[in-house]
Amino acid sequence: MREADALTLPVFFKHPVGLTVGEIATLTGAELRTGARLDDLITNVAPLNRAGSSDLAFLDTAKYAGVLTSTRAGACLMTERFENQAPSGMNVLRAKEPYRAFVIVARRLFEDSLRPSSLFEAEGVPSTAAIHPSAQVAIGVTIDPGAVIGPRASIGAGTVIGANAVVGADVRIGRDCSIGPGASIIHAIVGDSVIFHPGCRIGQDGFRYLAGANGHTKVPQLGRVIIGDHVEIGAGTTIDRGGSGDTVIGEGTKIDNLVHIAHNVAIGRHCIIAGQCGLAGSVTLGDRVMLGGQVGISDHLVIGDGAMIGAKSGVVSNVPAGEKWFGYPALPGRGFLRAMAVLRKHATRARKAP
Amino acid sequence: MREADALTLPVFFKHPVGLTVGEIATLTGAELRTGARLDDLITNVAPLNRAGSSDLAFLDTAKYAGVLTSTRAGACLMTERFENQAPSGMNVLRAKEPYRAFVIVARRLFEDSLRPSSLFEAEGVPSTAAIHPSAQVAIGVTIDPGAVIGPRASIGAGTVIGANAVVGADVRIGRDCSIGPGASIIHAIVGDSVIFHPGCRIGQDGFRYLAGANGHTKVPQLGRVIIGDHVEIGAGTTIDRGGSGDTVIGEGTKIDNLVHIAHNVAIGRHCIIAGQCGLAGSVTLGDRVMLGGQVGISDHLVIGDGAMIGAKSGVVSNVPAGEKWFGYPALPGRGFLRAMAVLRKHATRARKAP
Amino acid sequence: MREADALTLPVFFKHPVGLTVGEIATLTGAELRTGARLDDLITNVAPLNRAGSSDLAFLDTAKYAGVLTSTRAGACLMTERFENQAPSGMNVLRAKEPYRAFVIVARRLFEDSLRPSSLFEAEGVPSTAAIHPSAQVAIGVTIDPGAVIGPRASIGAGTVIGANAVVGADVRIGRDCSIGPGASIIHAIVGDSVIFHPGCRIGQDGFRYLAGANGHTKVPQLGRVIIGDHVEIGAGTTIDRGGSGDTVIGEGTKIDNLVHIAHNVAIGRHCIIAGQCGLAGSVTLGDRVMLGGQVGISDHLVIGDGAMIGAKSGVVSNVPAGEKWFGYPALPGRGFLRAMAVLRKHATRARKAP
Repeated sequence: MREADALTLPVFFKHPVGLTVGEIATLTGAELRTGARLDDLITNVAPLNRAGSSDLAFLDTAKYAGVLTSTRAGACLMTERFENQAPSGMNVLRAKEPYRAFVIVARRLFEDSLRPSSLFEAEGVPSTAAIHPSAQVAIGVTIDPGAVIGPRASIGAGTVIGANAVVGADVRIGRDCSIGPGASIIHAIVGDSVIFHPGCRIGQDGFRYLAGANGHTKVPQLGRVIIGDHVEIGAGTTIDRGGSGDTVIGEGTKIDNLVHIAHNVAIGRHCIIAGQCGLAGSVTLGDRVMLGGQVGISDHLVIGDGAMIGAKSGVVSNVPAGEKWFGYPALPGRGFLRAMAVLRKHATRARKAP
Repeated sequence: MREADALTLPVFFKHPVGLTVGEIATLTGAELRTGARLDDLITNVAPLNRAGSSDLAFLDTAKYAGVLTSTRAGACLMTERFENQAPSGMNVLRAKEPYRAFVIVARRLFEDSLRPSSLFEAEGVPSTAAIHPSAQVAIGVTIDPGAVIGPRASIGAGTVIGANAVVGADVRIGRDCSIGPGASIIHAIVGDSVIFHPGCRIGQDGFRYLAGANGHTKVPQLGRVIIGDHVEIGAGTTIDRGGSGDTVIGEGTKIDNLVHIAHNVAIGRHCIIAGQCGLAGSVTLGDRVMLGGQVGISDHLVIGDGAMIGAKSGVVSNVPAGEKWFGYPALPGRGFLRAMAVLRKHATRARKAP
Repeated sequence: MREADALTLPVFFKHPVGLTVGEIATLTGAELRTGARLDDLITNVAPLNRAGSSDLAFLDTAKYAGVLTSTRAGACLMTERFENQAPSGMNVLRAKEPYRAFVIVARRLFEDSLRPSSLFEAEGVPSTAAIHPSAQVAIGVTIDPGAVIGPRASIGAGTVIGANAVVGADVRIGRDCSIGPGASIIHAIVGDSVIFHPGCRIGQDGFRYLAGANGHTKVPQLGRVIIGDHVEIGAGTTIDRGGSGDTVIGEGTKIDNLVHIAHNVAIGRHCIIAGQCGLAGSVTLGDRVMLGGQVGISDHLVIGDGAMIGAKSGVVSNVPAGEKWFGYPALPGRGFLRAMAVLRKHATRARKAP
């Protein structure tokens, strides 16, 4: 076995039964090139340059078309224009969006990868989990060892609670959620099909004090965290509960690792928030907002629907819907990059000057 | 019930017995407007626009004074100048600092919000906690399931140790502390009334190596973390122990989520450190220093008493006491913003030039 | 006892038996000044200004030479040029690299500080750990209470697994590793002598979706995390597994706290990555790369062997081997600092202009 093959063996997932080339065409709506063998079995996905005879690959850019001369992939999804360059023995599947079709197949082959499952391969509730007698755990919930579930908490059917995860008193978790190992969820109401990755921290106190010369007085944080359906929350990410109102994460929003979301933030639907972003208190994000990594947004600002903020930007004013901002402080469009280019020119001149 | 009411119901806290309007006046030192009903009962706090007949609100800025025409709040703390605009049926409490008075009432109504309590509503020590036989756990300590307490560790009376939290060998924790779920505290000496939020990491090795062409050699990290009384440490925050001396967090200092504090840092009293700040090795902060979110401070720098550093600044030189710095690299006063304004003008000109 | 002495007492480590001055000379290759007492016992290390009669200190810079007049250190490693300024009663050890020699002695005195040990001072496997029957735990593994080890996981001899740490199904951990309290390791293959600090998160899903107007579709993350020998990973750091290939951390690389490493990142050997850095998807780092704190690197970029990136830089283009870059956006050499200096001058002029 070649080392490259070893690298792509899905040792951490169930070996898929596989799909035939014909089934893949049906599943994705792809058209088969003449000569394709409908009964060939595909059991894995791989990049075109590493794929073997039972792997499915994809090609959607001329940049990698050269690989077609040497690839050993059993089947490949591609746009029509590459079809004639493909080896004659390869099963070619014509698709308008090859990558999208490829992902559809990968999701079908590896259904157990779509949300984290019990890492103990447990079923039901183990004796080592501490479930408060008043908690309501639905039939069909899986709980890994060491998990703790507080009084009156309710857990919907199909949900998996990871090893040493903690769910606080009165928390409501919906159906088919996945809570990673070591995560803690308190003061929260959670929808269905939400994924919490390992070690995320939901619902603790927001950071609010009355400043004083002899010390700062804690302001009670009485609100909650409300999380919509199909939200995903990254490893180590922290979401504080609201002060008086709530902190809200809208349906379908995806949040990466080590993000900090402060109290009373309201995030719309289907936003994408990359790693290590920080949203200060009472920030509002519209729907479909995208934040690059390490972005910071000052408190009480409003970012409009569909706005995009470039990585590492520091946003200090409201951003209108649909605009792209970048920089520190963030400016619209290419303003910051243009400014830095001017700066660089000045600097070069300064260095050359006698 | 209106949805807005539902949002503010304190489901995660004990329903308060409530305070009468007269008791609130006594508690805060506020003066009652003529006609106030001393026996009216207040059982919750809310923003002026969402408050109902048993809620206390506050008003301290003309910006929200318009809400007075429509509010249904049972009572409102306000400065004198708004008094005549308030509905005649509302209990008006005159206060010089309405928000401060409001917080005092909120703290009294929701005493259980002032520090995290047992999320298992446990009392005493459960059988599922692993307490080393040589650990000294005072009477009146509450420990949640799955907590681990190492040899010779001592835990002061009134302290609550959260689910799956870990306290290492020889650690000393004072009285009335609260350790959140999943936190770990090793190599540390901790004062009284300290709050550790979920998943914070205290006392692990600092990041120090002797660099070498064939690998880096770990430098032993022999110091400790010393934490003063009334300190609060955010979720996921990491504080490394000292290398030879100690890492010190002064009394009353408040640290937000996902902050990184390196070995041998010395932080003074009553500082405020917002989310995702990073303090490199041997940084010194005076008393009452305030850092905005995502600030970075280079190693060995000294930030003087009462200095304020704007969000996302990168500090590469010492900052004198009382100064306000901002930017990357950070500059005093409005220097960085002014510089960026100049830059923006240049950039605009460059774009317009033929 | 003076307070300063109390500060350096290694209460969290075993009291060393100690080394004689003669043994230290042999161990480090240092030469003894005439009059040195070979049998004097050294039991601790300390900074020159705080060292007592049984402590070893070091001196390698003129900046601290003045301390020689008042120090009470029992022995001091120093370069030859300071030798005559040292008190006549002090044991002086001449070394070309005094700090390196000092670290060698500290490592010998405090061998238990070189990697985190069981905080429960446990040996073997406690009944409170949940070890799946199919897991392969070698003889000589130490497991603290509350740890969870999944099906078919293998743990090499000499490895210590901290309290409430979690090792997922099929994970392979080598020999003499140390896994901190509350850490989670899934979908990973780990070499020997690797240190995972508390709460780090290894192997969860990468952050990849097919964007769509009605929601984002999760792309299966089928790869692994591969970690070489002698790697060290900081508290709270997150390393996502690969999407199709693997995320790879090369031998001897040291990673600080709260770093985020995205899917398919490839890091070379002996790199140093300071706190809160973020590496976006598919970034490649060569060997011996050094990143300052809070650096961000955009996806798919390549940082060449031995390159150094200054703290808080935002890297948006490839960096050639051996170069030093700094700034946001990062520029080679002192380009960014020079640019900011020009800017500051402009800003000052703008302020002075009428």
